[in-house]
Amino acid sequence: MKLFFHNVTIIGVGLIGGSLAKVLKTKKLAGRITGTGRSKQSLELALKLGVIDHAEPDAKRAVEDADLVVLASPVGVFEPIMRDIAPHLKNGAILTDVGSVKGSLATTIEDRTPPGVHFVPGHPIAGKEKFGVAEATESLFQGTKCILTPTQKTNKQAIAVLTELWTMAGAKVLTMTPDMHDKIFAAVSHMPHVAAFAMMSAVSELNTGAERYINFSGAGFRDFTRIAASSPEMWKDICLLNRDNIIQMMDRYLAALNRFREDLVSGDQQKLEAHFSAASQARRGLE
Amino acid sequence: MKLFFHNVTIIGVGLIGGSLAKVLKTKKLAGRITGTGRSKQSLELALKLGVIDHAEPDAKRAVEDADLVVLASPVGVFEPIMRDIAPHLKNGAILTDVGSVKGSLATTIEDRTPPGVHFVPGHPIAGKEKFGVAEATESLFQGTKCILTPTQKTNKQAIAVLTELWTMAGAKVLTMTPDMHDKIFAAVSHMPHVAAFAMMSAVSELNTGAERYINFSGAGFRDFTRIAASSPEMWKDICLLNRDNIIQMMDRYLAALNRFREDLVSGDQQKLEAHFSAASQARRGLE
Repeated sequence: MKLFFHNVTIIGVGLIGGSLAKVLKTKKLAGRITGTGRSKQSLELALKLGVIDHAEPDAKRAVEDADLVVLASPVGVFEPIMRDIAPHLKNGAILTDVGSVKGSLATTIEDRTPPGVHFVPGHPIAGKEKFGVAEATESLFQGTKCILTPTQKTNKQAIAVLTELWTMAGAKVLTMTPDMHDKIFAAVSHMPHVAAFAMMSAVSELNTGAERYINFSGAGFRDFTRIAASSPEMWKDICLLNRDNIIQMMDRYLAALNRFREDLVSGDQQKLEAHFSAASQARRGLE
Repeated sequence: MKLFFHNVTIIGVGLIGGSLAKVLKTKKLAGRITGTGRSKQSLELALKLGVIDHAEPDAKRAVEDADLVVLASPVGVFEPIMRDIAPHLKNGAILTDVGSVKGSLATTIEDRTPPGVHFVPGHPIAGKEKFGVAEATESLFQGTKCILTPTQKTNKQAIAVLTELWTMAGAKVLTMTPDMHDKIFAAVSHMPHVAAFAMMSAVSELNTGAERYINFSGAGFRDFTRIAASSPEMWKDICLLNRDNIIQMMDRYLAALNRFREDLVSGDQQKLEAHFSAASQARRGLE
């Protein structure tokens, strides 16, 4: 049976929501795509770009007829949105999200999901430092991973539908527990974002007369700090929702930095080179 | 008068030395280019690739006829190389280096430079995480900056010659004091490398059963840690030669991380978003 949704509603038509809408269109997986969200400007642009067929600023009305509802707004507003839309979700509808945090957030959404509606927590590992619907592209998920974090309550059939959808978007679908998801992404995404923000913060303090230090940054510094151009609002929300794991990971990072600092203070060439070598080899194994 | 060197000797024909040799060839700025260095393999490859005209493993013999000698080996071996070659440098020759550290290292080279030879300390801000002569390209310096850090002893004419050479390579030439150079590059290059090594170190510790955390890293993590693939030997040398500045900068970075950690622990949304916003704006101003 071919995957097809008569009505899809995307809540938050930005980079990720917009790209998923484009996949649904390109692959002819949806009859009609409705966009909703807080930003009227963003919705109008999405409509003008043909990413959505219909813009409905009122989320309650936007979800009424939807077979598939995708929460793609910043994770910080998932809870108020759920409070708003829950009574209006159609019986039999599938609800999913694309949030970078699972854990307690997924539980919150699950608890607010009415009986007869099937919630499948999801996280496509895609994105770039640029955001907004103008950046949306149907190829965004090609060759990426998409993680689903079902609980014991999650409907098996709904998991199968989401798996097919993300597979058609070009992603490899994996499942894991919400807790494991949040531990892993604290390490490989959330904490590195905090570290990049901190680096920009530390370096941009430095001004000496006419010369701003940052004017001398090369390609390495630009790569290192690229993720610091990400949305502060979105990252504030992610960090607070996954803060225990991020703090744990920060402490590991601070420990590693302090090990290197000690090598420098003691001038221990061999230790420093050994530490750098292990890190360098790990990085070269990545790509 | 057109810039022209009858004999150029590159000591350390890697990415930077090899790229400069290619510029000299492409722009017809040199009669004959001799390569020397510790690695016989590297020299043979440079010869095979046509980057140099002649390979002479003995640095003393390699510099005898050179009008221009370029120190392009890892900064950690500059001092022993100088001890070796100093008595063999030709009267009137120009000696320069491409090291990422100036300060006391430049003084060491200057002190070992015989009278009649003109040393101009230099640092082209170019490079990538890949290294070796196979990566060398004459376009490496296009659109970059090259910093010269002359002292009161530095010959004015030799500065003019180096300025012309790097300008022809496509770089914008700037001069500053060795100390200012080392402070700036501790901030925008050396410390970020240490931070990237530390991140790889912290994340690669994490393994849970079959799942290696690092397998879930996305484009952001890859950008952030790209510079951690750099040469551990080279970076160990740089870090030790500029360690006071790097330690100072690490302390600034650790302070910024700890500020963010406090925001997380206290759950202060407004502070966290304000800190992230300032960092994000600084980063968006960069490119």
